Amino acid sequence: MARAHNFNAGPAGLPLPALERAQRELIDFEGTGMSIMEHSHRGKAYEAVHNEAIALTRELLGVPDDYYVLFLQGGASLQFAQVPMNFLPAGKSADYVITGGWSEKAYQEAQRLGTVRVAATTEVNKAYTRIPRQDELKLDPDAAYVHMTSNNTLFGTQWHWLPDTGKVPLISDMSSDIMWRKVDVAKHALIYAGAQKNIGPSGVVLVLARKEYVDNARKDIPTILRYATHAANNSLYNTPPTFGIYLLRNVLAYTKEIGGLDEVERRNRKKGDLLYTAIDENADFFRAPVAKDSRSYMNIVFRLPTEELEKKFVSEATKAGMIGLAGHRSTGGIRASLYNAVPYESVSKLVDFMKSFAKQG
Amino acid sequence: MARAHNFNAGPAGLPLPALERAQRELIDFEGTGMSIMEHSHRGKAYEAVHNEAIALTRELLGVPDDYYVLFLQGGASLQFAQVPMNFLPAGKSADYVITGGWSEKAYQEAQRLGTVRVAATTEVNKAYTRIPRQDELKLDPDAAYVHMTSNNTLFGTQWHWLPDTGKVPLISDMSSDIMWRKVDVAKHALIYAGAQKNIGPSGVVLVLARKEYVDNARKDIPTILRYATHAANNSLYNTPPTFGIYLLRNVLAYTKEIGGLDEVERRNRKKGDLLYTAIDENADFFRAPVAKDSRSYMNIVFRLPTEELEKKFVSEATKAGMIGLAGHRSTGGIRASLYNAVPYESVSKLVDFMKSFAKQG
Repeated sequence: MARAHNFNAGPAGLPLPALERAQRELIDFEGTGMSIMEHSHRGKAYEAVHNEAIALTRELLGVPDDYYVLFLQGGASLQFAQVPMNFLPAGKSADYVITGGWSEKAYQEAQRLGTVRVAATTEVNKAYTRIPRQDELKLDPDAAYVHMTSNNTLFGTQWHWLPDTGKVPLISDMSSDIMWRKVDVAKHALIYAGAQKNIGPSGVVLVLARKEYVDNARKDIPTILRYATHAANNSLYNTPPTFGIYLLRNVLAYTKEIGGLDEVERRNRKKGDLLYTAIDENADFFRAPVAKDSRSYMNIVFRLPTEELEKKFVSEATKAGMIGLAGHRSTGGIRASLYNAVPYESVSKLVDFMKSFAKQG
Repeated sequence: MARAHNFNAGPAGLPLPALERAQRELIDFEGTGMSIMEHSHRGKAYEAVHNEAIALTRELLGVPDDYYVLFLQGGASLQFAQVPMNFLPAGKSADYVITGGWSEKAYQEAQRLGTVRVAATTEVNKAYTRIPRQDELKLDPDAAYVHMTSNNTLFGTQWHWLPDTGKVPLISDMSSDIMWRKVDVAKHALIYAGAQKNIGPSGVVLVLARKEYVDNARKDIPTILRYATHAANNSLYNTPPTFGIYLLRNVLAYTKEIGGLDEVERRNRKKGDLLYTAIDENADFFRAPVAKDSRSYMNIVFRLPTEELEKKFVSEATKAGMIGLAGHRSTGGIRASLYNAVPYESVSKLVDFMKSFAKQG
């Protein structure tokens, strides 16, 4: 069968060449007579893959030398707990900027573990249609850290600038837009990202963290939940998800091959602009609820005149080979996720479909 | 290249048919035009795989209806923390039976989180060569639970009976021998096992737990670390490691196909008996340090007359296509791991090699 046009919000599509490489060597990795997942995580074959994945991350994102690159498990949801466990000591408070469902969850989990403040929220009637302005952030200058979510999959908003948090460490959940373009890593104390949108399969979390910040974190927590434990062991303290990291390596190697993150950004902007233009040009039929300066290039959310038409839209699109277009169950509507691996052709097909649907609609 | 003879201690070999199935459908899962890892974890395609993996676990192990079957992340190392976080409240103490390096680690992590006791240890000069007898277990009748490690990869010992813990819940780390044969699940309050020895790739942890025990566990811990959170959401609270669970499904489907765990046990005993006989019949050259009634069928540990000969043994075996025979770096010696996926032919080849090596040695 032909490749599906995969607009899933995550786990998302992966670049075909990265998958083909995995398929070719699934049973016999580099002539060893074993799958990479059958190799010891302490053997030479896996170690080379592991270190290449780290090196590619450093290269593609320009990660400064004084930052650790870690591969962890448990998804962003475990990070929601791990961040305050490591960095929020008793007697301190942490600031959370709430821009959607995932930052709400991060805030709620931190609330169970320490003292937290809402530094800003753009919630109106349980919906979020924009990113706050700098002057809306009520930052505590003594906060342990400020937590933000760089892109919001449910509501389709994305930060297009980095907040100024002064001397307070900035921690960002980039699960849904990591490597959609370059980012100034040095402006963050810590970045975390579940791999399953832009850089790999589910089951791997990428963490970039300033060494000094990690080295001075709390020590009175479980060993396995300390970032410092994994940093001291090059993410080999315990058995890592070796096949997931191998696939992430394949994705990053392919990303480098096509020109790195500048090219990735160019492609993502081209895809996003195509789709937003199609929405805006048919504003009598499609409605994009998100403020223009907060629009996400990863998750493009729009509504149709009625919920009935939305259902019909999703159903007919599915029949035409376009998968994953239903909005999140909490929001409804349509959501097209245009992660790195979604080809321009898929977006172009979607736009054609939208135009003809709007006409008949 | 021919399949390697894989004696790795873990990640370990997987059944070739399970890998071949994954290879065939890596890019196009069941005609969907997408890899299973590109499917949404909330979509029908993945959900069917997820539920089949759970159903096969229930069927193969005869898991009682009043037990949850969960797939988690973070390896056994996260379980070392998660168990006391869930089940060891302030004012209570937990008993640990120490039979090797991994039970030491489980004990040390629990020690950071609550009050723990050593109910028994068979450590002598930092080595463990046997499983304790029931009459050696100094059990606290008021303990929150008793923790044991069913098989010890470093030292090659294995429990061949279940301790009687009275009314105290028994928790067992079965990472290195889960499904090597049937086990009486109902005698445990909770069983956990990293998948990467007998049932899948690294990055997935199988947990079997009595519902009542989980439902009454502590609630004052991070949401993501509560077993109850995952139980209430059929292990779909957050994005699971979908490809790992898919592969585990493939392994279990194959296991069922060859006759289930009775057949697996028959094969494992045949392999282990062949190797132990070869050791015992050449007792002037090979030395098995483990007490006979505590010998592991998963990790068979033996020594040669000198460390030099051991090095030569490993090096020549590697050249002959036998991988992973060096003992753990903390113990030295030789270790042949004969997990479920290791074929009889590999053991037979190893035994032939041992015989001829002993002659020339």
